[in-house]
Amino acid sequence: MPIFRRTLADGSDDELIREEPLLIAAGGAEVLTMRTPGRDEDLALGFLLSEGVIPSAAAVTGMHATPGDPAARTPDRIDVALTGVDAAHVRGRLTRTHEIRTSCGACGLTDVDTLLEGAPPCLAGVPKVTHALLQRLRADFEARQELFARTGACHGAALYDGHGTLLGFAEDVGRHNALDKAIGQAARGGAALRRAIALLSGRAGYDLVLKCLRLGVPVILSVSAPSALGFDLCHAAGATLVGFLRQDRAKVYTGAERITG
Amino acid sequence: MPIFRRTLADGSDDELIREEPLLIAAGGAEVLTMRTPGRDEDLALGFLLSEGVIPSAAAVTGMHATPGDPAARTPDRIDVALTGVDAAHVRGRLTRTHEIRTSCGACGLTDVDTLLEGAPPCLAGVPKVTHALLQRLRADFEARQELFARTGACHGAALYDGHGTLLGFAEDVGRHNALDKAIGQAARGGAALRRAIALLSGRAGYDLVLKCLRLGVPVILSVSAPSALGFDLCHAAGATLVGFLRQDRAKVYTGAERITG
Repeated sequence: MPIFRRTLADGSDDELIREEPLLIAAGGAEVLTMRTPGRDEDLALGFLLSEGVIPSAAAVTGMHATPGDPAARTPDRIDVALTGVDAAHVRGRLTRTHEIRTSCGACGLTDVDTLLEGAPPCLAGVPKVTHALLQRLRADFEARQELFARTGACHGAALYDGHGTLLGFAEDVGRHNALDKAIGQAARGGAALRRAIALLSGRAGYDLVLKCLRLGVPVILSVSAPSALGFDLCHAAGATLVGFLRQDRAKVYTGAERITG
Repeated sequence: MPIFRRTLADGSDDELIREEPLLIAAGGAEVLTMRTPGRDEDLALGFLLSEGVIPSAAAVTGMHATPGDPAARTPDRIDVALTGVDAAHVRGRLTRTHEIRTSCGACGLTDVDTLLEGAPPCLAGVPKVTHALLQRLRADFEARQELFARTGACHGAALYDGHGTLLGFAEDVGRHNALDKAIGQAARGGAALRRAIALLSGRAGYDLVLKCLRLGVPVILSVSAPSALGFDLCHAAGATLVGFLRQDRAKVYTGAERITG
């Protein structure tokens, strides 16, 4: 269950989103993320893909989950067996991911070109997205955010194909985790992410934008605004970035040629 | 300036919040954060305090900022000179901070008691906070969020004393950074954080809650909901946690004895 019940100050009961550590181990390296328990395989696969650790889901030959032991103070753990991936590459990518890094990763964060290294070029002109489809995706996405409706404290992310068919969806206490779980689900299904549409419940910061661009996702929709770096990355990659996706409203930041109608 | 102007797909101009790397160096260790440029000294001081790296602002004897060099791909950097702090402690704390950690930090994330190690006990019964004060703080906070009003993509954090006097306030593309800048500002002013009130624009996740509790801040207000771990930490520490602070509305999760009127 992704939710805990707690008794509040007035004696009433409330549902709160769970936020607990998961250790992802791959190629002899480990990273720890605070996530909402559930779908850890999707999270691990999506994380390895979106951080450029592995080139495709085919690089994963198996996963093994081990529950944490409170007495030994060990967290939940998932071991990922890889094939055809250089272990030094895996360790290097895992140690330079996410918000706080040591200086070895700093040079990779200072310019757009370096950030986009290894990301495939966005396919030109596809998918075409009508304003009607934007509104249909927004409504579909809102209807799926059940954990948010119950707890008020989690993010959502979805991937759709160009016709609006769902490829992956997840909610999680962490923005990164929600997107990674959606990516993992889509990748397990063999989705063509280079023709897909990503929808994010929060801002389009550089980190979530980059996860999408590393997989060649050409259309990124956000309920909120992008950061300047998120904008610059989409602009440089030739991706379509739509912000403030609300009822009867959407703001096209970059890549307007994919938006029609 | 914390904002960049960009030209959108329709040729109009827009203001976007900046999101750029800053390397914080202290005690021979370094961490990198993606932040909105500006008030980097507040950020560095607040970060070192809220992550338990230094016990008080008096441990900092000087700071030196070096602008990044795009040609050399080096980020902005701030070097913090410390006194009276064990270098091994500094390195240990810096390497186990934030969302993604290696396994050496995992055992510190699995139970509430370990997370709260080193946090001072919350002072009992202070400050007393009326519902009228809650609403006054909410209105003051909203009025201060100028960057959010302009960009739609940043978080805010504030610290007040028990009378509602502002001790520190900041907006930043990163939730952690906003709180750290507010803490840094308050600490430079010699504020009594163990009698202070924190106000967060987003959720009360474990990480922001823990930053407050490490400094003994006894009252935490959030515009949104807490995570289960955020709740459990406040409950264990004896702190007051108020969520969904909206107009004419507030939900008291823990520590109701400090809420009056």
